[in-house]
Amino acid sequence: MENLIFGIRPVIEAIEAGRQIEKIYFKKGADGQLLAELRDLCFRHRLRIQEVPVEKLNRLVRGNHQGVVAQMSAIDYVEVHDILERVPDDETPLIIVMDGVTDVRNFGAIARSAECAGAHGLIVPIKNAAPVNADALKTSAGALTRIPVARVGSIRNTIKALQNEGMQIIAATEKSNKLLYDADLTTPTVIVMGSEDTGISKEVLKLCDEQLAIPMIGSIGSLNVSAAAAVMLYEVVRQRIHD
Amino acid sequence: MENLIFGIRPVIEAIEAGRQIEKIYFKKGADGQLLAELRDLCFRHRLRIQEVPVEKLNRLVRGNHQGVVAQMSAIDYVEVHDILERVPDDETPLIIVMDGVTDVRNFGAIARSAECAGAHGLIVPIKNAAPVNADALKTSAGALTRIPVARVGSIRNTIKALQNEGMQIIAATEKSNKLLYDADLTTPTVIVMGSEDTGISKEVLKLCDEQLAIPMIGSIGSLNVSAAAAVMLYEVVRQRIHD
Repeated sequence: MENLIFGIRPVIEAIEAGRQIEKIYFKKGADGQLLAELRDLCFRHRLRIQEVPVEKLNRLVRGNHQGVVAQMSAIDYVEVHDILERVPDDETPLIIVMDGVTDVRNFGAIARSAECAGAHGLIVPIKNAAPVNADALKTSAGALTRIPVARVGSIRNTIKALQNEGMQIIAATEKSNKLLYDADLTTPTVIVMGSEDTGISKEVLKLCDEQLAIPMIGSIGSLNVSAAAAVMLYEVVRQRIHD
Repeated sequence: MENLIFGIRPVIEAIEAGRQIEKIYFKKGADGQLLAELRDLCFRHRLRIQEVPVEKLNRLVRGNHQGVVAQMSAIDYVEVHDILERVPDDETPLIIVMDGVTDVRNFGAIARSAECAGAHGLIVPIKNAAPVNADALKTSAGALTRIPVARVGSIRNTIKALQNEGMQIIAATEKSNKLLYDADLTTPTVIVMGSEDTGISKEVLKLCDEQLAIPMIGSIGSLNVSAAAAVMLYEVVRQRIHD
């Protein structure tokens, strides 16, 4: 497994030094003052934590982990406003939000398609997201080192903030009667893709300005989320460069 | 592993009974008259064969395999003319040819997108194709049991035959200057997708009526083949239902 830091002090130091951490594994039921301090630090830095049996930690590292192992991020996350600020003046913003895409390969594939389509950034939730690990990087064909990725505590608040910045929020959902071809995607656009199993959550769906469907002609009735993302992204490209 | 038949006589009987076989594994260096007969039968039925170390056969089956194990197909293959005949009268044919797509997940993902887009069939070569196994079926979300798949000895001859049937052959290649949006895809269309590494082979590319590119805006310069297939398929859908 890639890039791990372990032991209570080293992990605290990594957090305080601002190093980017994907997730912190805690030994189930572990306690003690220093661990409590670390937990508090994780909470304040909004880090993803997971309690696991000690055997998992023993498998991850050989040294004395003291009940704590931090998996470092394979990429440098940015803030949402960084994504917006980096959009060149002569380009129209295009951002992908993933609401619950947990499959590493789907995440990597969407990143690749987004980079190819000239999207300016990806936004993922802190919880309920695919880990950005070596597999994700590989599936993305390196896209994840090129396209900025922001992690946010609340997709809903982020969507509201993006609406305040003048962006239209498009939900990709096969349940809509309106097709993607019938919307104007030439203005600043955020495309929201949902989870593999249940699609976009109701709470997020309600906030979106448009719900657009890709037409389903066969009998299966739903594309893989990374195929759907590619089709949505390239409809934006088509309208912007071609219509 | 799924559905295996082993032993020389049982495999010969399976072939002669017309059962659909994905691939036949032969023990490396095995000989004998019955095996020679089987090899000849495989050749006449244009079956894919592969020589492997005996350890591989021992891992595949517990019984006495006599140096031969046949992996049965997870689907029933059809002939190319079956695909054409099954196109409903009020629909315009749309077929995907895969020239060297060897990754099982990509193959399954393309099958799924093709079914969703209402394509009428998939054509794959006997050699240099992904095995249609349980993983392919799973990735396809069942599409491979719904969309007909034909295996052909020569992609080139198949393309010529499809041209004689009045179909236009579209090569999806990022090396073209013509974009997919600039072609008329409302007539009977075959889309050729190439291998993950090297794209469509030169010999096949030469035969195609059009070479169309999906615009690459970022710096990576190529989509995953299953994402590219989804984008191509849905440009066909868009033109046919929307333009």
